[in-house]
Amino acid sequence: MAARLSLKGDYESLLEKYDTWLFDCDGVLWQGDRLIEGVVDVLELLRSRKKSVMFVTNNATKSRRSYKTKFDKLGVQAHVDEIFGSAFASAAYISSVLKLQKDKKVYVIGMAGMEEELREEGISYLGGTSSEDNTLEPFTLANWTPDPSVGAVLCGLDTSINYTKLSKAFAYLRRDPSVAFLVSNEDSTYPTAEGLLPGAGSISAPLRFALGKDPVAIGKPNSTMLECIKAKHDYDPKRTIMVGDRLNTDIEFGKNGGLATLLVLTGITQETEITGPNASPIVPDYVTSSLGDLRILIPS
Amino acid sequence: MAARLSLKGDYESLLEKYDTWLFDCDGVLWQGDRLIEGVVDVLELLRSRKKSVMFVTNNATKSRRSYKTKFDKLGVQAHVDEIFGSAFASAAYISSVLKLQKDKKVYVIGMAGMEEELREEGISYLGGTSSEDNTLEPFTLANWTPDPSVGAVLCGLDTSINYTKLSKAFAYLRRDPSVAFLVSNEDSTYPTAEGLLPGAGSISAPLRFALGKDPVAIGKPNSTMLECIKAKHDYDPKRTIMVGDRLNTDIEFGKNGGLATLLVLTGITQETEITGPNASPIVPDYVTSSLGDLRILIPS
Repeated sequence: MAARLSLKGDYESLLEKYDTWLFDCDGVLWQGDRLIEGVVDVLELLRSRKKSVMFVTNNATKSRRSYKTKFDKLGVQAHVDEIFGSAFASAAYISSVLKLQKDKKVYVIGMAGMEEELREEGISYLGGTSSEDNTLEPFTLANWTPDPSVGAVLCGLDTSINYTKLSKAFAYLRRDPSVAFLVSNEDSTYPTAEGLLPGAGSISAPLRFALGKDPVAIGKPNSTMLECIKAKHDYDPKRTIMVGDRLNTDIEFGKNGGLATLLVLTGITQETEITGPNASPIVPDYVTSSLGDLRILIPS
Repeated sequence: MAARLSLKGDYESLLEKYDTWLFDCDGVLWQGDRLIEGVVDVLELLRSRKKSVMFVTNNATKSRRSYKTKFDKLGVQAHVDEIFGSAFASAAYISSVLKLQKDKKVYVIGMAGMEEELREEGISYLGGTSSEDNTLEPFTLANWTPDPSVGAVLCGLDTSINYTKLSKAFAYLRRDPSVAFLVSNEDSTYPTAEGLLPGAGSISAPLRFALGKDPVAIGKPNSTMLECIKAKHDYDPKRTIMVGDRLNTDIEFGKNGGLATLLVLTGITQETEITGPNASPIVPDYVTSSLGDLRILIPS
């Protein structure tokens, strides 16, 4: 059972136990464009206590750089190097693990942030935000010449998803089984200030269904994302805690990496999912209502 | 094991055994816009021997009326009443089985043929080919007022699929569990003359994934389609044969309905899928290379 934090001593003991703090963003630091109360103070407290702070997001629509802009806008201190998005992790995976040859290209279902991270890694790509593939015109294989240099298909959340992109990605993957099938993350839904919309996992679902094949998934809860963090900042898993709002991404991610886990209830997960007969089998180590609760440790 | 037809006597015995002949269209009668050799002669032969002939297609992009135009164009004799498409079957299901109240509407992910069949059944709908929902502009719940009269979401192949349609369909299904989730058919791919593209099952995959819920599927191999045929033409299952090119739709459909099944190899299924160690567990009663093989019975 998860330990419910409430007393000052509970939070103090957490600070003593963990040196590296990984945070999910949406539902933990903010909800859409609204900052969660107390977050700025708590992050300042952690930094003042010499904790390493990192931000780990599955959102692949933004690059680390555009994420940084969001932090700045909301007044949350963060360095680009502390931000790990699944677009960045996907680009790192393609160059470091997949070792895609430099003359090969990636066919992208995704948005500008994903393209920016690919460019930063020196990876060539097709599709994405190109005007040619952002169309509702009918698609036919008769009018299309596939690019023989495509060596991978990378799919993330793409709010301009359409039949041309799905058909091209499907054709690349179907013609040549050596073409890698990657997804930035498998979140079924995407939280917005007004409610949930279909997420990256839902956008790649047509390809899974048409191919009858599962992709390699990069983002939380997969360890690929953690390897990507480890390559930049070494940490001791025993003294690291993952803070998140989603059981099947954030908390599972922490558990998969042997980290401690703290669930906050300001995002997707509701109280009813962690207690009672229908509780999820994914059990966080600690639970608190909001990241803002740690303000109890700030000397007044 | 399936009986491989080759001798004149094999085909003659088939004609003697079965009075009602159900045909899939794409891959059986034609491939894309190309008629399969001998099909016109074979259908004439069947009609001359007083057989009932019916055409059963999962393609929900066309209404029966527009299907009839395709038959005419390719010179294949057919009456509208002999054609059963999954768009027609879906509309029939909504009015006869779901009994959707007349003041309720269907949110459509689908094309003009599906809308035409809904109109013919007197069912109101939203989405589909409406210009409002055929856009690649960003979608936000903030700018959208859901229509409270939506009582069902019907999804078929839609080559104008986009994030606005997926988001609205998801929102209707998520807000109110009493809203019915229907798909015209679950074909993972859609055959065109130049190759396979993602099919209706792939178009509905984002909704399944985002909702974590399976829809009610109308088309082959589901019995809903057969009930729809039975309501129009009574037949004796023991004297009825289903002819198709797909094991997991056509042949399974025939088997589910207690009909005999004949597989032709002019479409999706390859020889290797029905013989050898990797053969499919779905075994047709009979196999022949092409429907045109039945020309052997035509007196010269």
